[in-house]
Amino acid sequence: MKVAVLTGGGDCPGLNAVIRAIVRRASEHGFEMMGLRDGWKGLLDDNHFRLTRETTSGILHRGGTILGTSRVNPFKVENGLERVKRAIERNGIHAVIAIGGEGTLSAATRMSQEGLRIVGVPKTIDNDLNGTDFTFGFDTAVHIATEAVDRLHSTAESHKRVIVCEVMGRHVGWIATYAGIAGGADVILVPEIPADLEAVAQHLVRRNAGGRTFSIVVVAEGTRIKLSADQNEQLVTTGALDEAGRPRLGGVGNIVAAEIERRTGFETRVSVLGHIQRGGAPTAHDRVLATRFGVHACDMVARGEFGMMAALRGNDIVSEHLAEATRELKRVPKEFFEVAQVFFG
Amino acid sequence: MKVAVLTGGGDCPGLNAVIRAIVRRASEHGFEMMGLRDGWKGLLDDNHFRLTRETTSGILHRGGTILGTSRVNPFKVENGLERVKRAIERNGIHAVIAIGGEGTLSAATRMSQEGLRIVGVPKTIDNDLNGTDFTFGFDTAVHIATEAVDRLHSTAESHKRVIVCEVMGRHVGWIATYAGIAGGADVILVPEIPADLEAVAQHLVRRNAGGRTFSIVVVAEGTRIKLSADQNEQLVTTGALDEAGRPRLGGVGNIVAAEIERRTGFETRVSVLGHIQRGGAPTAHDRVLATRFGVHACDMVARGEFGMMAALRGNDIVSEHLAEATRELKRVPKEFFEVAQVFFG
Amino acid sequence: MKVAVLTGGGDCPGLNAVIRAIVRRASEHGFEMMGLRDGWKGLLDDNHFRLTRETTSGILHRGGTILGTSRVNPFKVENGLERVKRAIERNGIHAVIAIGGEGTLSAATRMSQEGLRIVGVPKTIDNDLNGTDFTFGFDTAVHIATEAVDRLHSTAESHKRVIVCEVMGRHVGWIATYAGIAGGADVILVPEIPADLEAVAQHLVRRNAGGRTFSIVVVAEGTRIKLSADQNEQLVTTGALDEAGRPRLGGVGNIVAAEIERRTGFETRVSVLGHIQRGGAPTAHDRVLATRFGVHACDMVARGEFGMMAALRGNDIVSEHLAEATRELKRVPKEFFEVAQVFFG
Amino acid sequence: MKVAVLTGGGDCPGLNAVIRAIVRRASEHGFEMMGLRDGWKGLLDDNHFRLTRETTSGILHRGGTILGTSRVNPFKVENGLERVKRAIERNGIHAVIAIGGEGTLSAATRMSQEGLRIVGVPKTIDNDLNGTDFTFGFDTAVHIATEAVDRLHSTAESHKRVIVCEVMGRHVGWIATYAGIAGGADVILVPEIPADLEAVAQHLVRRNAGGRTFSIVVVAEGTRIKLSADQNEQLVTTGALDEAGRPRLGGVGNIVAAEIERRTGFETRVSVLGHIQRGGAPTAHDRVLATRFGVHACDMVARGEFGMMAALRGNDIVSEHLAEATRELKRVPKEFFEVAQVFFG
Repeated sequence: MKVAVLTGGGDCPGLNAVIRAIVRRASEHGFEMMGLRDGWKGLLDDNHFRLTRETTSGILHRGGTILGTSRVNPFKVENGLERVKRAIERNGIHAVIAIGGEGTLSAATRMSQEGLRIVGVPKTIDNDLNGTDFTFGFDTAVHIATEAVDRLHSTAESHKRVIVCEVMGRHVGWIATYAGIAGGADVILVPEIPADLEAVAQHLVRRNAGGRTFSIVVVAEGTRIKLSADQNEQLVTTGALDEAGRPRLGGVGNIVAAEIERRTGFETRVSVLGHIQRGGAPTAHDRVLATRFGVHACDMVARGEFGMMAALRGNDIVSEHLAEATRELKRVPKEFFEVAQVFFG
Repeated sequence: MKVAVLTGGGDCPGLNAVIRAIVRRASEHGFEMMGLRDGWKGLLDDNHFRLTRETTSGILHRGGTILGTSRVNPFKVENGLERVKRAIERNGIHAVIAIGGEGTLSAATRMSQEGLRIVGVPKTIDNDLNGTDFTFGFDTAVHIATEAVDRLHSTAESHKRVIVCEVMGRHVGWIATYAGIAGGADVILVPEIPADLEAVAQHLVRRNAGGRTFSIVVVAEGTRIKLSADQNEQLVTTGALDEAGRPRLGGVGNIVAAEIERRTGFETRVSVLGHIQRGGAPTAHDRVLATRFGVHACDMVARGEFGMMAALRGNDIVSEHLAEATRELKRVPKEFFEVAQVFFG
Repeated sequence: MKVAVLTGGGDCPGLNAVIRAIVRRASEHGFEMMGLRDGWKGLLDDNHFRLTRETTSGILHRGGTILGTSRVNPFKVENGLERVKRAIERNGIHAVIAIGGEGTLSAATRMSQEGLRIVGVPKTIDNDLNGTDFTFGFDTAVHIATEAVDRLHSTAESHKRVIVCEVMGRHVGWIATYAGIAGGADVILVPEIPADLEAVAQHLVRRNAGGRTFSIVVVAEGTRIKLSADQNEQLVTTGALDEAGRPRLGGVGNIVAAEIERRTGFETRVSVLGHIQRGGAPTAHDRVLATRFGVHACDMVARGEFGMMAALRGNDIVSEHLAEATRELKRVPKEFFEVAQVFFG
Repeated sequence: MKVAVLTGGGDCPGLNAVIRAIVRRASEHGFEMMGLRDGWKGLLDDNHFRLTRETTSGILHRGGTILGTSRVNPFKVENGLERVKRAIERNGIHAVIAIGGEGTLSAATRMSQEGLRIVGVPKTIDNDLNGTDFTFGFDTAVHIATEAVDRLHSTAESHKRVIVCEVMGRHVGWIATYAGIAGGADVILVPEIPADLEAVAQHLVRRNAGGRTFSIVVVAEGTRIKLSADQNEQLVTTGALDEAGRPRLGGVGNIVAAEIERRTGFETRVSVLGHIQRGGAPTAHDRVLATRFGVHACDMVARGEFGMMAALRGNDIVSEHLAEATRELKRVPKEFFEVAQVFFG
């Protein structure tokens, strides 16, 4: 029985650990594993190679994906679905394991509805996929962001500065929240709550008056600025923000830093972490989660649990409907805002 | 309202993060926080100091505990309970938050049954406490052990050796299992399954015959040797093992290494990680969990949830009966043995 | 005998290790140590505190500086020199140990020429100070930059991208060269050699043609663009560069990335590491170097070696004239360009 | 022109970086590179393979050696020299680059004296090779040992314990000295100075009396115990030590810990780091040094500098006579003992 596996979307530490686990488990089920190159594109272009224990040896702790990846969506390609179906038939592929985030799993859901045998593995450093407590890659991203916040702390303190650290998180603030709590940030700004920059400035002024002459602000890249206060409305009229409070140019970190400096007079610096959060060796935590997902996904194929994906519930790996993963974004719950006590919306 | 906090038992990364979170939350509840020095001993000796935001500043990421710790158990001290009660009364302590493992929480459970107002916070790098999905400190221990396994891997491979890595885990194999999976170990030995050294040796010989001229064996310190095979019985008669399969002298890692070398003829080395697994800065994951536990424990005092402890269920922090934590050990479930495929019992 | 110590200029991992070593050594010489707050400003404002073994305990591995720092230059302040002299007399300060970079040591040199007893300790993450083989802080900056390049590598490879990583180095390319060699960069651009972007683009195209579908470009922030090629001249006329080849807006990393994408058509991303390179815990290497510098500086005071600074020569700590440190920048020697084989000027 | 390369002796982070650099430089000189398997054994057994840019891609940061290694010494094998000569002739090998420590370079020196064209690259994590300021691998070992000492510190402090950390260093105390200084150890014991355990105990008692209720002792594995004091002589009569002060059984760390506990009554633990110090990814510092050594060694072949090895002098790479490397051990100079102020001999 031939089973194909693909990785789609952005980079995420742990992809190779999933692939390795699938291949090892497959040999017990007697599956022949086929690696599709560059996500769904590998099916459209009939570009693939055989995966064996040997070709997946030594990759457990390596970042990236040996399969390559792309953002190609078969439903946005002419005759895409037809071509996918033909490739599956031509190659005698029994089932496809799709490892990916919102985009990849949405396509997987639709294909499954079209009758294809698909099993999913959720992947996102942002942790915004529904239907699973956590995804691999998130812990690594938090680990890297926290190390950065730790380093920025000492400079902020010695130099009596405000330092704004922009982390990943386009739609949700999981990385910002975790790295902010772990790094002891003084302000955390997330997409879930439009940021009230005036309240932020006042908080920093109060800290300063109390002898805390430095502060760390962690902001998720997708954070919008709250437009109720007059000063923030100016950011729209000057073209810095659009009418939803999103920065027009550059990252939100730069705007937050500039506004803090303008409103408080405190010397403020910004650090934008960017891609270092999604590359390189996964943490031990993510390697274990990725391995368990891979083993479970393979077992799902064996059991015929199609249209579903591997998911983490408590410390158990379970099967969850694919549609559930993309039904809505998993946002940071209120409890965290209370724990951190440093959210300003 | 005065609330006392203590840390008991062995070192565990994240203790300071719990203390800091408790103190910060306490200031919102209007509690006055008192730090007891060296666990229950601080109550017996009336040795304590005031905890404030200032005295707990900058400790979030630091290992150890600013409160000190000891293994003193009031129930094993003459008039211990009486002295504890008097100290609580004399100092006007409304409630005690006890951060600790099996020993500390057992004493806490009994005190609670004696009518004292106690809230617990579970602590163990071994992750063997029942009633909570995870405890802080465990992720850090796994992180350190995995880094060690990664490093040993390259030496094993270049030198065509077997390397045995002994990790912590007196009663359960959580650290060995996680570090073994994350590090890609070829054999994992845990207290849950008596180790069949002959099966281990045969597995390593098969690997070697297949061209894998090196192997990594991860063994938890509490692993016992299975005594059914004749050769293992000899270890009892020679005095290396007692009749339960426990090593009489030295660690189990040394015995496993010596037996592998004797049975296979492969050059074998042992590395005993020891205390580096339980000291130093906690991982980001553990800092967040520790902080959430601390905030929740403080809220439990405010809500009067005594005789209970903070616990993790999925990604939620909940309150769980103290007695539940020590009712039985939380062992590694079978699923992990299947995931790793490298357990030999 | 009273000896004062100050730290000036930007943050640099290892400052606290120097301070700690000075204070410990001072107690053997019988010096009373005085810490000046915020660099030379502490002398101008008479703002200082006593340094003892106790107040410098536990700081060896901590980033930042417990003395605080500033860029205040007494020679640019009205009556600055006069005020410094009076403060030294009023407080009975026998000598001042100034830990700092180009700015701080230039002021120190002039003060020394004015007859004050000054000993210097060279500090710069950029490693551009003359008269010493290395300065502390540099190894830590390289360590952090290399970790980042390692992480970017896996993403570049999986996603078939060019990733440009901008590192610190305003006047020299030491960090870029070391991190580039250590991280296996495919192109390294440094201030010492104006960058020939057309040659860079052609190199990346050749790599791609040879099957290397990804590349890592490390660029020092102070790199200028070579203006001989026609396409680069356009960057001047469009206002992106000034006539010396320096970017007018934003960092040079963004311009290099944009130009690579335009000239090659390859998807290109940029990562600007920024302040995380100069904060946080120093590497073991930097802690040892900083400690040796501190001990030596204290001995220099005892021996009356004023107007000089501690310096590293081979693996020996020696005394060097302060003026030597700032006489000229220490540039990356040609040998490194040949070693890396990936410089494009 | 065909050039062979081999790696001999124990594992050392950076070996692959040297190999990669040699192969890349070789392609510029037009050399054809041949990799000998398992050190000199590869020549004796005629076991080798071709090294190209492709086969050495992606190994820069990987621990171990792709060539394998052994401790086989041709001068201890029957007709060893003759067989080496014949293999060189048969394969048309113009020159051999030998990367190794004391054993490998001693053999290389003799072969060179026998007229063979040999170039050396010094390798030892212990940093005990003469003729070069530093060797690659040492910085990585110090980095790992310092991380361990940092972690042990927090446990020692919280638990009011003495912790003894045994690090590598059979003949010299470089690793112990550097990790001890970097980790802020309270006692450092090295092979250069027989350890006076009574003086150590008294020092710890004084610290304790002064309120420092914990201590860290770093001891190099090759440290001998000073036998002048009566109590230490007992260790000989009880068989714990031989007459040179070397432990008969187990490591010196265990004896030091046991004796400290016996003489002071303080709870004392020991941690033996072992092989984790010599495996895994090299630090950035070691990758750069290894790369520069590799490039230089290749240039030495091109220039005909045989019977010599690459060496670091200040920040320059130079050529040094092979015999110089093994003439005597490079011991830790006295200056370091004064810097650390915590040696007890």
